[in-house]
Amino acid sequence: MDNKTLVDVQSIRDSRGIDLQRVGVKNVEIPLNIIQKDGQQQIATVKATLTVDLPHHFKGTHMSRFIEILNEWRSKKLLSIDLEGCLKQTIEKLNASNSYIILQFKYFIEKEAPVSSLIAPMGYNCAFEGVFIDNKYDFFLSVNVPITTLCPCSKEISDYGAHNQRAIVKVKISYAPDQIVWIEDLVNLIESTGSSPVYPILKREDEKYVTEKAYNNPKFVEDVIRDLVNELRQIDIIKWYEVECEAFESIHNHSAWAYQKELIKKNK
Amino acid sequence: MDNKTLVDVQSIRDSRGIDLQRVGVKNVEIPLNIIQKDGQQQIATVKATLTVDLPHHFKGTHMSRFIEILNEWRSKKLLSIDLEGCLKQTIEKLNASNSYIILQFKYFIEKEAPVSSLIAPMGYNCAFEGVFIDNKYDFFLSVNVPITTLCPCSKEISDYGAHNQRAIVKVKISYAPDQIVWIEDLVNLIESTGSSPVYPILKREDEKYVTEKAYNNPKFVEDVIRDLVNELRQIDIIKWYEVECEAFESIHNHSAWAYQKELIKKNK
Amino acid sequence: MDNKTLVDVQSIRDSRGIDLQRVGVKNVEIPLNIIQKDGQQQIATVKATLTVDLPHHFKGTHMSRFIEILNEWRSKKLLSIDLEGCLKQTIEKLNASNSYIILQFKYFIEKEAPVSSLIAPMGYNCAFEGVFIDNKYDFFLSVNVPITTLCPCSKEISDYGAHNQRAIVKVKISYAPDQIVWIEDLVNLIESTGSSPVYPILKREDEKYVTEKAYNNPKFVEDVIRDLVNELRQIDIIKWYEVECEAFESIHNHSAWAYQKELIKKNK
Amino acid sequence: MDNKTLVDVQSIRDSRGIDLQRVGVKNVEIPLNIIQKDGQQQIATVKATLTVDLPHHFKGTHMSRFIEILNEWRSKKLLSIDLEGCLKQTIEKLNASNSYIILQFKYFIEKEAPVSSLIAPMGYNCAFEGVFIDNKYDFFLSVNVPITTLCPCSKEISDYGAHNQRAIVKVKISYAPDQIVWIEDLVNLIESTGSSPVYPILKREDEKYVTEKAYNNPKFVEDVIRDLVNELRQIDIIKWYEVECEAFESIHNHSAWAYQKELIKKNK
Repeated sequence: MDNKTLVDVQSIRDSRGIDLQRVGVKNVEIPLNIIQKDGQQQIATVKATLTVDLPHHFKGTHMSRFIEILNEWRSKKLLSIDLEGCLKQTIEKLNASNSYIILQFKYFIEKEAPVSSLIAPMGYNCAFEGVFIDNKYDFFLSVNVPITTLCPCSKEISDYGAHNQRAIVKVKISYAPDQIVWIEDLVNLIESTGSSPVYPILKREDEKYVTEKAYNNPKFVEDVIRDLVNELRQIDIIKWYEVECEAFESIHNHSAWAYQKELIKKNK
Repeated sequence: MDNKTLVDVQSIRDSRGIDLQRVGVKNVEIPLNIIQKDGQQQIATVKATLTVDLPHHFKGTHMSRFIEILNEWRSKKLLSIDLEGCLKQTIEKLNASNSYIILQFKYFIEKEAPVSSLIAPMGYNCAFEGVFIDNKYDFFLSVNVPITTLCPCSKEISDYGAHNQRAIVKVKISYAPDQIVWIEDLVNLIESTGSSPVYPILKREDEKYVTEKAYNNPKFVEDVIRDLVNELRQIDIIKWYEVECEAFESIHNHSAWAYQKELIKKNK
Repeated sequence: MDNKTLVDVQSIRDSRGIDLQRVGVKNVEIPLNIIQKDGQQQIATVKATLTVDLPHHFKGTHMSRFIEILNEWRSKKLLSIDLEGCLKQTIEKLNASNSYIILQFKYFIEKEAPVSSLIAPMGYNCAFEGVFIDNKYDFFLSVNVPITTLCPCSKEISDYGAHNQRAIVKVKISYAPDQIVWIEDLVNLIESTGSSPVYPILKREDEKYVTEKAYNNPKFVEDVIRDLVNELRQIDIIKWYEVECEAFESIHNHSAWAYQKELIKKNK
Repeated sequence: MDNKTLVDVQSIRDSRGIDLQRVGVKNVEIPLNIIQKDGQQQIATVKATLTVDLPHHFKGTHMSRFIEILNEWRSKKLLSIDLEGCLKQTIEKLNASNSYIILQFKYFIEKEAPVSSLIAPMGYNCAFEGVFIDNKYDFFLSVNVPITTLCPCSKEISDYGAHNQRAIVKVKISYAPDQIVWIEDLVNLIESTGSSPVYPILKREDEKYVTEKAYNNPKFVEDVIRDLVNELRQIDIIKWYEVECEAFESIHNHSAWAYQKELIKKNK
C-alpha cells in the first residue's frame, strides 16, 4: 500500500472559525495499575476519556494518537500517578494547548468485619480526573462509598424499629498536585459519616453490632453531608469539594438526596 | 426514483441450509395505550422486540415490516390487548411460521398511604410477552415490584433495631390466553409478601405505621419467595411462574437473592 | 393514633452551622402531560428531582412535601409549562430560599421517511430543568438526538465505502423564560447537522436515499459540533448552550467525542 | 459478647413445605485471577452470584458463608479454573444438594491492527457459569464481541456507500468440563463472522483496510448468526450453544436482531 496517497483529512484547513474546547476519545477500556496506600499495586479495569482543544483552523483531531498515548502510559505503569505528564504529552503530540483526562474504575480495599475481624475485598467506584488548561494543572479524585443510613424521624416516632437503607455517598475533591490523598483514607472518612459502614462479610456477632450501631446513630442524608462537609473543611490540603448522598429509601421507590459544592478559599 | 431497480436482497436464496429461530427488531420505542383494571387507559413508553423465524432458503427478513406492524397495531390501540392477533399478522406478512413479541414498559398505579390515605402514582416495570410457535400461542406477564424486607436474624439477635432495605420482586407468569390477570392485582399480591409495601408518599403517621409493620413482620428473601409461591399455586388460572427476590442489603454492597420457577401441572 | 406525639424531628435545631445547598427527593417517577408544538399533549414517563436549600438551623427538610407538590402540579397538568411557579411554591412550602427541579423523560415525535413518506413515532430523551436561586429563575432544555455520522477520513482514503455509525448529540440550552423553544424544532436543527438523520421506518427507496445522503455528507464529530455551534449562535433567544456529540465508531469499541459550552453574551 | 445468645434464625424449622431452587448472594464484587491462553494470568473485576437450593425444612440459608467461600477460592487463585470444586464445597458447607455460580467480568486481549500491526488491549464482557444439580456438573462460557456489520441491502441498492454499524455478538456455549475452549479462540472465531472485526487502534492505512474489507464483505445479522452456527456445529467438543447478534443500526434508533439456540446431539 502506498501510504503517501492517504490524505490527512484531519489537517485540512477549516473555515468555520470555531475553536473547539474538547475533542477526543471516550469510553476507552484499558487495564491499569493503581498504587495502593500500602505501596502495593492493583490492576483495575478502567474507562478512559482523553481530549484536547482543537484550534479553529484544523478540521479534525487525530483520534488514534489518543489510544497510542493511553497505551504507552499504561505500559509504563505511570498513568495513575502522573496524569499531568500524560496531559502534557497529549498536548504536545496533538499540537493542542489544553487537555483533559478522566479514568473511571472499580478499586478494591480489604475490609475487616467489626467484631469477627473477618476480611474480604470490597469494590468502590473511583475516578482520577486531570485538566490542563491555560498552562495550569488541576487534579480531581472521586470516590463513591456505600453506607447505611437509619432515619432519625422513623426512629423517633416509632414504638420500635426504624427504617434504614443502603445509601451512596459521592465525593469529588481537588487538592494541590504535589500532595496526595489516598483512596483508602477518603473511603474511611466517608464511612465514618453514615449510621454505619457497610461490609463485604458479616457473621452473626458482626450483624448484631452494625444493627445496633446504626440504631444508635440515626442520620438523615442532610446529617451525612453536614458531617462530611465539617470533615472536608478541616483537611488542609483540600481546596475544593463536591459531595452528595443518595439514600435508596427502604419505604419508598425514590431516593432522599442532599448535595453540596464548595471552593474552600486558600492561597493555593 | 425507479423502484424496479431496487433489488430485494433479503429474498435472495440462501444456501447455508440453516433455519433461524428469531430474526427481527429490538428496542423499538413506541407509546402504547394500556388498559387499566378500572377500564381507563394509560399511555406507556414501550420498548418492543418483535421477531419471526426465517426458513433456510431466505437470506434475510424484511425489517421495516416489523415497524409497520407495530405502528399499525399501536394506532389501532389494540396491541396491548391482542398480542396474539399481532403475532398472527406478523407471521402472515413476513411469510413466517413462528413469531415472538415482548413489550416492556413502566406502568403507573395510584397508591394510597396506609394512614393518611394520601394518594400518588407509583411506577412499576412490566412486560407483556407473546410467543406463537407451532400453531400454539403462549402469553407471559411480568411485573417488578419494590418492597421492604426486614431481616429476621438481625431483629432476633439485636437488642434493638433490625436492618431493613428496599428489595425488588420480579414475577413472570403464564396463564390461559382467554383469561386475564390484572397488573394491579398481581402488584397487590406481591406487595403483601414483603415486610411492608413501599409507597410514593408517606406522612409522619404513615411512616410510623410502615416502620412498625415491617418490624412486626420480618422476612428473608426466602420467606418472600415461599409466601409468593404459596399464593401463586393457589391461583387457578396460572399455569407457570418464575419469581425472584433481590434485597439490596443495607449492611452490604451486594444483594441477598432467591429464585424459583415452576410449571404448575394442569390439563390446560 | 395521636399525631401530637409524632415529633417533627426535621425541625429540631441543628448546631453544626452548615447551610445546605440542595436537599430533597431524587428519581421520583410520575406520568406527566407535555405540550407539543402542534398544541396537542402527550403523556410522558418522567423521572423527577426536586430540591431546596436548607438553612443551617434546621436539622432536615420535609421530604413528603416534595411528593405532594409534584403530585399536585401533575394533577393540574401545568408542571411541564410552569416550572417557575412550581419552584416558587416549593420554596414557600418548605420555608426555603432556593429551589431546583429536573424532569427527565422520553418524548415522541412522528417522523416521516424521506422518500416513501411513511410515518412512525421516534422517542428522544429530553429534560426540563429549572433553578430558582437568589430570586432569579433560569430554565434549561435538554434533548438527546441520534444521528448518522459518516467518517470523512475513511471516505477519502478508501477506494470504496466509508465507515459510518449511530452517534448521539446532546444539547442543553438556556433562554429567557418568557420565550419558548419547541423540542420539535431543536430536534430538527440537530438532525440537520449529522451526515443524515436516523428514522424509525425506512423502505428500500428510503434506505437508498439515506445511504447516499450520508456518503455525500461526511462529518467528523468535530464537524457536527461546529455546525451546531454555528446554528445555536444565530438563534437570538438562546443565551447559553452546552453540546456534545458521541459517535459509537463502527470500527472501534470506543467513541469519538466532541464537546463545547458557551455563554453567549447578551444583555438579557 | 456471648455468641451462644445469638440464635441461628436461619436454621429454624420452616413449615410451609416449599423447597427453594436457588438462594444465595448476587452482585458480589471481587478481583479474580483468570488464566490466559498464553499461560499468563490477568486480574479481572468480577461480579459473582453464588446460590444453593434450600430444603423445605430450613427457614433460610447462611448468606455470609457464600462470601467466605468466594473469598477463600479467590485467595487460592483457583476460582476461575475449578468452578466445579467451588460448587461442591458450597454444597457441602451449606448442607445443600445443588449449587449455581456465575462470574461476570471484562477480559482484555491484546489486538493487533491489520496493516500497521500496532497493538493495544481490548476489553470483552465474559462470564463463567457453573451448575451442579442432581450430581451432574455443567459449565457455560459466555463472550460478548463487538464487530462491524455492513448492510448487504444498502450496498446493493445504493449508487455508492453502504450503511454500517457496530454490532454486538453474544455467544454462550457449553462443553465437556474436561475440555477447554479459550476465550481468545472464541473471540477470534466470532470476529471472523462479521463484515470486519473492530480494533482498539487503527492508523490511516488500517482504517482504509477495514473500510474496504467491510464493504467487500456485507452481512445481515442473519448472515452473522448463520456463519457462526456453521462454525459452532463443527467444533466437536461444543454440545450446546445460544447466540445472538444485535446491530445498532446507523440509520435507525433501534436494533436489528437475530437469535439461535441449539442442543447439538452428542453422546456426551
